[in-house]
Amino acid sequence: MNRILLGHGSGGKLMHELIKKYIAPVFELSTLMDSAIVNINHSGKVAITTDSYTVSPLFFPGGDIGDLAINGTVNDLAVVGATPLYLTVGFILEEGFPISDFERILNSLSKAAKMAGVRIVAGDTKVVDKGKGDGIFINTSGIGIVPDGIELSPLKIEAGDKVIISGSIGNHGIAVMSERNGFVFEPPVLSDSRALNGLIGEILKNLSSSIKVMRDPTRGGVATTLKELALESSKDILIYENAIPIHDTVKGACDLLGLDPLYVANEGIFIAIVRAESAEKILQIMKSHPFGLESAIIGEVTGDGGKTLLKTFIGGTRIVDMLPGEQLPRIC
Amino acid sequence: MNRILLGHGSGGKLMHELIKKYIAPVFELSTLMDSAIVNINHSGKVAITTDSYTVSPLFFPGGDIGDLAINGTVNDLAVVGATPLYLTVGFILEEGFPISDFERILNSLSKAAKMAGVRIVAGDTKVVDKGKGDGIFINTSGIGIVPDGIELSPLKIEAGDKVIISGSIGNHGIAVMSERNGFVFEPPVLSDSRALNGLIGEILKNLSSSIKVMRDPTRGGVATTLKELALESSKDILIYENAIPIHDTVKGACDLLGLDPLYVANEGIFIAIVRAESAEKILQIMKSHPFGLESAIIGEVTGDGGKTLLKTFIGGTRIVDMLPGEQLPRIC
Repeated sequence: MNRILLGHGSGGKLMHELIKKYIAPVFELSTLMDSAIVNINHSGKVAITTDSYTVSPLFFPGGDIGDLAINGTVNDLAVVGATPLYLTVGFILEEGFPISDFERILNSLSKAAKMAGVRIVAGDTKVVDKGKGDGIFINTSGIGIVPDGIELSPLKIEAGDKVIISGSIGNHGIAVMSERNGFVFEPPVLSDSRALNGLIGEILKNLSSSIKVMRDPTRGGVATTLKELALESSKDILIYENAIPIHDTVKGACDLLGLDPLYVANEGIFIAIVRAESAEKILQIMKSHPFGLESAIIGEVTGDGGKTLLKTFIGGTRIVDMLPGEQLPRIC
Repeated sequence: MNRILLGHGSGGKLMHELIKKYIAPVFELSTLMDSAIVNINHSGKVAITTDSYTVSPLFFPGGDIGDLAINGTVNDLAVVGATPLYLTVGFILEEGFPISDFERILNSLSKAAKMAGVRIVAGDTKVVDKGKGDGIFINTSGIGIVPDGIELSPLKIEAGDKVIISGSIGNHGIAVMSERNGFVFEPPVLSDSRALNGLIGEILKNLSSSIKVMRDPTRGGVATTLKELALESSKDILIYENAIPIHDTVKGACDLLGLDPLYVANEGIFIAIVRAESAEKILQIMKSHPFGLESAIIGEVTGDGGKTLLKTFIGGTRIVDMLPGEQLPRIC
């Protein structure tokens, strides 16, 4: 048996074997109950999130659908100020999917969960007929606790606030794109897929009252995220093109492919809008964390409005809108 | 625009329009944050579960993938003794999927959530290329609180305990099967898709200390669930064929199709193993709830072992094992 069969989703013997042999040991699941029972020693605000991952191809430079599914969901909890605790994992497997690939992804999920310090507590496995899926889709949902006193919101954004980004942009999208189309860049572009709860924990521990809001610019990229924040806060946000960290290879790849890096997906950086007087201090904390080495202040909130504006290299100013349609499908 | 486009999963403008126009109003989501923030006024045990729904066809007599996705996840929480509170919903849409079907499913999700008394607090939408999915797959994950003092476990099962089932078997599987294959039964067989937290709440409120364990016999049916319970408790469970509630049409359909109704999926019943002396009282409570009218005591725990045995109509006894492979694929 080296491929997934429809029977692996039956609820019967084959499914129990698959779970017992491959899934339960990797996730250290002890029982196969309908629900996991966990202890939450915190009465108050809890963050809940869900994300399905349909990235194609499944394996790409710097990551795969497994670590992406953990990191993406951990990051969605972290950017609202929560401490991620428990994740669930749901698989939709296509009949005929190689079990060796499934094992590789299971290991990647497990390793990423350990690195992020979260526990996978419940799972589900479904199998669809050949031609009705695409190898594997993964849903991860997660919960985390929001420490008392932390309440991030775009409504806290004020004129003068600074915009900080935690790393260079476009790496994930270009890495997936290069694998999908067989492009080879030198040096290779690696996905930035990584869990940000450690880095975010550092700044919240020290300066939580100075953080207005955080977001991770995944699908739609930095441009879409900043436009969302401008709309939700009814403030104008101005960013400086020459302040935005981007690797030369990513820039070159975007030029070559006709992509605007501001719209390319990221999976390991976040944007924070912070009180101006604490911006430098926050930046220093971020730069001293291994996942924040390339952090930079890239802009500021200029006043009421709802627009995002980009000051270009050559000194012009252009309006930044959301991605109108689809630039890179199936990127996460 | 009447079909799903790849751009609806882009993270950009089209996706925002889809969410704003169709999804957010139905679920009453006010913000589009990375994570929902909810209040849980309970420090202690919390139940967490996840399930993906890939049922084919999407619409069938008595239900559709939307109410199934709510009821299945609510029931997974309810059978471990939890009060379901919050659900997340993740969509994987196939390019070209009719938006009218999506709307119908959204309404069904919303209606089922209201009926079950749970709130949908977070969502996610991905789109895959035509031919890489099957219309729509839905993941729902859920959390609920486990009231103090409730601790259900197969390890509590003892010889003498009674096995109660809350309704007639096989309805969901046969309803989906009939729609898939164009069979018409008279009277029509309807899926039993429904949320069991109300009914379960009634018995837990009154007699929680008499309930050893509960399970909902979905994929793999009653036989697989009872075999799991026998294995996990290391007890023998004996059930009586003539005590198991089943509608004549379902029985006839199973005969016709060569299916064993004990292995056919259910989506609106549960099995409870209970202390013998409270069994009749629990049965009375169940029978007085609209979702438990057909409840019956179907067997008992006979001693140590790990087997499930069936006393047949004609008086023989046969061993009941898990479903070996696949009987009805894509049933939930």
